[in-house]
Amino acid sequence: MRLQSKTTLKIRDKILGGPVPLICLPLVATDQAGMLEQARDVCSFEPDAIEWRVDKFEAVLDTDAVLSALRALRETIGNIPLIFTCRVIDEGGFQEITTEDRLRLNHAVIAAGLVDLIDTEMSNGETMVAEVKAACQKAGCALILSYHNFDETPDETFILDRLVMAGKLGADVAKVAVMPKSYKDVLTLLSATYTARTERLDIPIITMSMGGEGAITRIAGGLFGSDLTFAIGNASSAPGQIPIDELRKSWSALPFN
Amino acid sequence: MRLQSKTTLKIRDKILGGPVPLICLPLVATDQAGMLEQARDVCSFEPDAIEWRVDKFEAVLDTDAVLSALRALRETIGNIPLIFTCRVIDEGGFQEITTEDRLRLNHAVIAAGLVDLIDTEMSNGETMVAEVKAACQKAGCALILSYHNFDETPDETFILDRLVMAGKLGADVAKVAVMPKSYKDVLTLLSATYTARTERLDIPIITMSMGGEGAITRIAGGLFGSDLTFAIGNASSAPGQIPIDELRKSWSALPFN
Repeated sequence: MRLQSKTTLKIRDKILGGPVPLICLPLVATDQAGMLEQARDVCSFEPDAIEWRVDKFEAVLDTDAVLSALRALRETIGNIPLIFTCRVIDEGGFQEITTEDRLRLNHAVIAAGLVDLIDTEMSNGETMVAEVKAACQKAGCALILSYHNFDETPDETFILDRLVMAGKLGADVAKVAVMPKSYKDVLTLLSATYTARTERLDIPIITMSMGGEGAITRIAGGLFGSDLTFAIGNASSAPGQIPIDELRKSWSALPFN
Repeated sequence: MRLQSKTTLKIRDKILGGPVPLICLPLVATDQAGMLEQARDVCSFEPDAIEWRVDKFEAVLDTDAVLSALRALRETIGNIPLIFTCRVIDEGGFQEITTEDRLRLNHAVIAAGLVDLIDTEMSNGETMVAEVKAACQKAGCALILSYHNFDETPDETFILDRLVMAGKLGADVAKVAVMPKSYKDVLTLLSATYTARTERLDIPIITMSMGGEGAITRIAGGLFGSDLTFAIGNASSAPGQIPIDELRKSWSALPFN
């Protein structure tokens, strides 16, 4: 049996933190038509969740266009849980967006009640995070607070501190994604996940070591406490993601049921 | 790419320590007819190596019967590399055998030139190990020196010391199998493997964390430096082994090619 979360999060008919890690497929498209086409494709894989990476969307600064696309997206994906994520360049984002624009967009999307979870970096400051948290609570949207490092893997204590801080800042889910330079770094990420899960944090966790060396954490991170993994339906949103078919095959000998 | 061995060992047409971890299937039968039937079955899976766990063989103390069975086994398995292993009870063996009887049997089997590798515990004392090593060198048989712990996972330094000691005692391959009590123990085994591979040892390594929690090391240990994994063809020889079909499926997203 894998290491489950002490508390679980029910999102529509899915349980985050339960016996099976959830599989999330990203949508990465420049316009609404392309995004909806991807969404239809992705639904055929029956993922547990879908993430719209809106930072690829050309009209990302046009709030009405985003809200309109979200309404169409919900109609397309039915009851599949939807994560809304807007990353700036430093966090692996696809285009220049200011943190102010992102904040405005996130607030509009949360208030419209169109998404189940929103993912935002915790590095944006306690005040900003507190505002987003308050908006989420009002609208019934779950909050993922995340830390990304595309350059390296910080030491285990640092990673652990980020996960614990996410919890303290009011996250419903704590997330860390880091880049390994060696298989040792991959073990560091798994060890931090294990310690967070067993000793420090009661909420669901999402962690991954990115790139080719980290792919094993996308497959087996669920054993050590990670509750959701991102795979490729028809588009990748970060280095090291693997196709959902291969991911499911690779689970054939793991206790994820 | 996985962490490969600094030196490789060619066994017939297989390379131990190269880009792909080898898959070994065990034979565990009470008599020659049953053992050969298992061997025929197991060959259909095209394993990279076959291990005969002779400690299950009822006639294990009858050296002639063992040698005769080995000759028939070689005819059955063709050019597949063969590991010969006799474990006493403390090492996970199937019946009472004294270490003296085991030593006598090992020497007879090595001298007969019927096996490619022989696996013996390094805890049997330096003198005994040196004798087996000398016999192996004379007969052209490769030596696996192993450490087993079916109760627990010692700390990383201890595991590392066992692997390094195997090399110092003249092993061609160093092997450690330990039992985890938690997923932390699984990470300890992988971390020791990584450190041995990158810093301490030039010869091929075989490591595994046993039981259900350790199954991931049988799948992904090759990333971190383990060069061979034991799977189930039609019989399991240790806790946590998984069927070879599932193992191969679980490799679909790993860089083992």
